[in-house]
Amino acid sequence: MSQPNLAVRNNFRGFPRIERWLLQQVFKAIGPAPIRLAFKDGEEMSPPGVSPRATILIHDRQTLIGLMLDPEMAFGEAYSDGRIEVEGNLAEALEVVYKSWPGGADTGWYQRLTSTLLDRRQTNSLDGSRNNIHRHYDLGNDFYRLWLDEQLVYTCAYFPTPSTTLEAAQEAKLDYVCRKLQLKPGERVVEAGCGWGALALHMARHYGVSVKAFNISHEQISYARRRAAESGLSDKVEFIEDDWRNISGHFDAFASVGMLEHVGVNNFAHLGEVIHSSIGDSGRGLIHFIGKSHKGVFSRWIRKRIFPGAYAPTLNEAMNILEPHDYAVLDVENLRPHYARTLEHWLERFDKSSQQVAAMYDPWFERAWRLYLAGSIAAFRAGTLQLFQISFAGQARQPIPWTRAPLYTAAKDSKWMHATS
Amino acid sequence: MSQPNLAVRNNFRGFPRIERWLLQQVFKAIGPAPIRLAFKDGEEMSPPGVSPRATILIHDRQTLIGLMLDPEMAFGEAYSDGRIEVEGNLAEALEVVYKSWPGGADTGWYQRLTSTLLDRRQTNSLDGSRNNIHRHYDLGNDFYRLWLDEQLVYTCAYFPTPSTTLEAAQEAKLDYVCRKLQLKPGERVVEAGCGWGALALHMARHYGVSVKAFNISHEQISYARRRAAESGLSDKVEFIEDDWRNISGHFDAFASVGMLEHVGVNNFAHLGEVIHSSIGDSGRGLIHFIGKSHKGVFSRWIRKRIFPGAYAPTLNEAMNILEPHDYAVLDVENLRPHYARTLEHWLERFDKSSQQVAAMYDPWFERAWRLYLAGSIAAFRAGTLQLFQISFAGQARQPIPWTRAPLYTAAKDSKWMHATS
Repeated sequence: MSQPNLAVRNNFRGFPRIERWLLQQVFKAIGPAPIRLAFKDGEEMSPPGVSPRATILIHDRQTLIGLMLDPEMAFGEAYSDGRIEVEGNLAEALEVVYKSWPGGADTGWYQRLTSTLLDRRQTNSLDGSRNNIHRHYDLGNDFYRLWLDEQLVYTCAYFPTPSTTLEAAQEAKLDYVCRKLQLKPGERVVEAGCGWGALALHMARHYGVSVKAFNISHEQISYARRRAAESGLSDKVEFIEDDWRNISGHFDAFASVGMLEHVGVNNFAHLGEVIHSSIGDSGRGLIHFIGKSHKGVFSRWIRKRIFPGAYAPTLNEAMNILEPHDYAVLDVENLRPHYARTLEHWLERFDKSSQQVAAMYDPWFERAWRLYLAGSIAAFRAGTLQLFQISFAGQARQPIPWTRAPLYTAAKDSKWMHATS
Repeated sequence: MSQPNLAVRNNFRGFPRIERWLLQQVFKAIGPAPIRLAFKDGEEMSPPGVSPRATILIHDRQTLIGLMLDPEMAFGEAYSDGRIEVEGNLAEALEVVYKSWPGGADTGWYQRLTSTLLDRRQTNSLDGSRNNIHRHYDLGNDFYRLWLDEQLVYTCAYFPTPSTTLEAAQEAKLDYVCRKLQLKPGERVVEAGCGWGALALHMARHYGVSVKAFNISHEQISYARRRAAESGLSDKVEFIEDDWRNISGHFDAFASVGMLEHVGVNNFAHLGEVIHSSIGDSGRGLIHFIGKSHKGVFSRWIRKRIFPGAYAPTLNEAMNILEPHDYAVLDVENLRPHYARTLEHWLERFDKSSQQVAAMYDPWFERAWRLYLAGSIAAFRAGTLQLFQISFAGQARQPIPWTRAPLYTAAKDSKWMHATS
């Protein structure tokens, strides 16, 4: 694309032109986003004819050079270090940048090279996964308790209306997953990647099924076991600290909510085999994951600092799990707006606890996590990321649901359902 | 798989053992389906311990040899010729065979080779498509009028309940597609492959949009133009006798119901480009098609005799239309049970008109088309075929629908909707 014609105001008359040129190069890289880039000593720039939605204040020349060469990584590092500040709404500033960015954040040769190197370091082998998961999910339950809902559900919620509370929306999501799976009392369910156990416990409590739930996060599994014991559900729900690759046994249904992002696309065929050995040709399943609408690497900064080993697959890639075993896709739903809303709740709670977070860890950690949450809001709003729920059934499964209407009209638990009258 | 242990009754004592061996080979090929294979002069066979659901009566030894070598093609040819008769329900007989068939009908080297040769002859180039489409859709409107609904909708209907009439279910499908597309008055829609025009006319009449609808079947387009004129909708709906590759203009929405099966998987990238040049990054669309849950060729007999050039893609393959242009899949619905039900209605009407069909064409044609309809019922029941509706939106489309609940709870036209109270 051609270089945008930028409105420049030089408050500092003797200012060297290099900063002005650098600011132009940053806009050339990220596109004509309606933001103001301001260098600390006075130079500032924004695309002409737009009203800037936020100001990004850059503290030093080195940071500015970094932004020009590798905007996404440099922004993440500098924001976390405090070398960049954002005046205005952080999520909104990032959203407008994502929307203007020609080709997206990770398309240059340097980006692809460093992405590959990152993948090598963060491989999702048995050992690699344990390390990757430990680095994120074992940060301490007290930390997550500050900003998640009371059940500690760390995946996209389902809001029957945008004003539904986070607590109700997470409960609604758990139930929505159970309904999509059409669980019946006495059935056996295997869950791959169970977080703090909320879905497994919901299934056992409200649908009378028995669940084996796998997770390699030690902190999460310990917490989930305590909850099962406190709820008197230990005989119905078994929480197993092990990798999805070690799932064994026979089940009626397979569920995985928010794990696929950590599996790695090279392991999808293996995951398909594990699913098939668990539920065979007569079972059904649901996979819920952050995806993309075109193939591309996952944010390098997020992988470096927040989610090692993460990857958001396209539906094309996800089909490589199911098609080798002739699993029929029954339903795919894109819940992208719901993840943006979920993250808005999380960020709001996070911001209220920001001093506590900084005290628990350090100010760098607090800024990095705020950026991760705000950046995720922006990505789901802009459509850079999608949230897919895929329901599927084996070829011997008969019958399949007649319509989807009962998901919306035959409320089992009316407190969270859509208004139907 | 090992050869099934078959219960054999030899009514004809001096009968040569070759027929018995051939019958065993047929069961070896199709698996231990609960059917009885009977040779005209007395030998018959069925798998042990099952109650046969139908009897397939084979008239001569040559047909029996054909069934052993290439069961699907030989069955189609012989049934159409009258060299095979089925006592019992034809669709049910085929359904149990499809369910028992190890690996499905088209997995041998001979099947793959002849399939490739068929593809060469029936290529979906501009000229090839015109010929392929002419051979099926230009058989004469009077023929289709005998067994389709009154609007001549020749694609899967949507039955809010299994007992909905075919007429109401086709109307419901047209409306369901419009709702999924979220059409608003004044918008412009392009339809690729419009059949006899029912969807385009429904959109214009009930949603106030203007439609350009493309089709290369001369008979269908002529009929659709007459209907538009009779309904006073000629200024809103333009029916164009041309190939999807020649679509031009800018539109808000793209719709294609039942055309993708005739596009050919090699042309999917091209179709994606045509969609993108029509609706850009801010439009949305819907593609409705017969698909598969694992990659495989489409029935060779159906391609040879009924649908030249047809192919049923997997979702993985269909994503090659959308992902290059960053179209976000919003919703995929599998309506397989609805196509089985639709075809049951069609076959029932077809059977009532069988004498008329035989008189219009000949008895061969009547038998071939009955087999095609019954075989399709069987395939959708058994899960050999799927029916996918994919809704998608460009990356600049904001917002996307909050939930799918309004599809089921906020009836615009209550006469076809699901019961909500």
